[in-house]
Amino acid sequence: AKRPATTMSQTTNYGDRGMSLEAELNESNQYYLNQGVAVIHKKPTPVQIVKVDYPKRSAATIKEAYFRQPSTTDYNGVYQGYYLDFDAKETKNKTSFPLKNFHAHQIAHLRACVAAGGIGFAIIRFTDDVATFLLPASFLFHCWDDALQTDGRKSIRRSAIEAHGYQINPALNPLVPYLNAVDQLITATKK
Amino acid sequence: AKRPATTMSQTTNYGDRGMSLEAELNESNQYYLNQGVAVIHKKPTPVQIVKVDYPKRSAATIKEAYFRQPSTTDYNGVYQGYYLDFDAKETKNKTSFPLKNFHAHQIAHLRACVAAGGIGFAIIRFTDDVATFLLPASFLFHCWDDALQTDGRKSIRRSAIEAHGYQINPALNPLVPYLNAVDQLITATKK
Ligand SMILES: [Mg+2]
Ligand SMILES: [Mg+2]
Repeated sequence: AKRPATTMSQTTNYGDRGMSLEAELNESNQYYLNQGVAVIHKKPTPVQIVKVDYPKRSAATIKEAYFRQPSTTDYNGVYQGYYLDFDAKETKNKTSFPLKNFHAHQIAHLRACVAAGGIGFAIIRFTDDVATFLLPASFLFHCWDDALQTDGRKSIRRSAIEAHGYQINPALNPLVPYLNAVDQLITATKK
Repeated sequence: AKRPATTMSQTTNYGDRGMSLEAELNESNQYYLNQGVAVIHKKPTPVQIVKVDYPKRSAATIKEAYFRQPSTTDYNGVYQGYYLDFDAKETKNKTSFPLKNFHAHQIAHLRACVAAGGIGFAIIRFTDDVATFLLPASFLFHCWDDALQTDGRKSIRRSAIEAHGYQINPALNPLVPYLNAVDQLITATKK
């Protein structure tokens, strides 16, 4: 079946702001997969398909569709028998991470995953100095619940992320070696 | 943002043949989620988006997109700390399940998941008598490898599925209580 030969750049421009972090994570996941270390994938963007053309001798073409709100986080998979579930977020802020970057359904999903025995977290990048952190779901829940209070903070201080998270230093293979931070999280949780 | 008020039936008609089993599994997963038993979701259909309209005062409309080949199975999630990964398949055959219902990349993905410590399987339904089975990935791999031989069987006998799989008896809540079969699989694997 014929398909357009070129992938237009538009195809990777929609979506949330975490695109460059996401691209690096996708490459990192491919590396982990190739090395037999872990199987972690970004979920496809959920789309509600309304109209499809089935032309003869060429690929079915979706002619009308809409973006749906995802009901989960973007990434999940398996590493050393552990179920991992996370989302990746970037912020241009320098000293704090605004919690409005998360949707309530993402937090609810992470809570359900942790309750079922999975490991949940966020990967947060401060784009100004490209500092990247793994933030455990437990601390994210704490901040989320606090933000729901009338006088609660609506953002997480960077200093708190540094204290409660694990910094992920960039590398070549993989670009974002976040499973090192997962190892630290697992060790800390066992203590 | 405005969206079309009606969901056209076309939106649920594409895809593979396992639709009614998939619909039952989606309901079952919703039940398991509501009960706090497990967090298992069907992944969205992967779509390559080529053209998007951003009209004023209404939702972004995808005007051109194509179905992509999925690189994984349809379902994954977490249950009692276990990573589960599976696909659902229906067949009209009465005495065997044709292996052409699987793609090589799905088998490769299941192998990678099992190697990383996850639990992989297929849920297979014979639509003629609506008999549904959980087939462990290990036996599926065995049949797949055999089919690659010149004189290998290209299908799995129903009797072999009955012998190596776990039958899932339909229920009301959930419709397809497949986690009972997962429990049996876990117990058998531990022995
Ligand atoms: Mg995201
Ligand atoms: Mg399927």
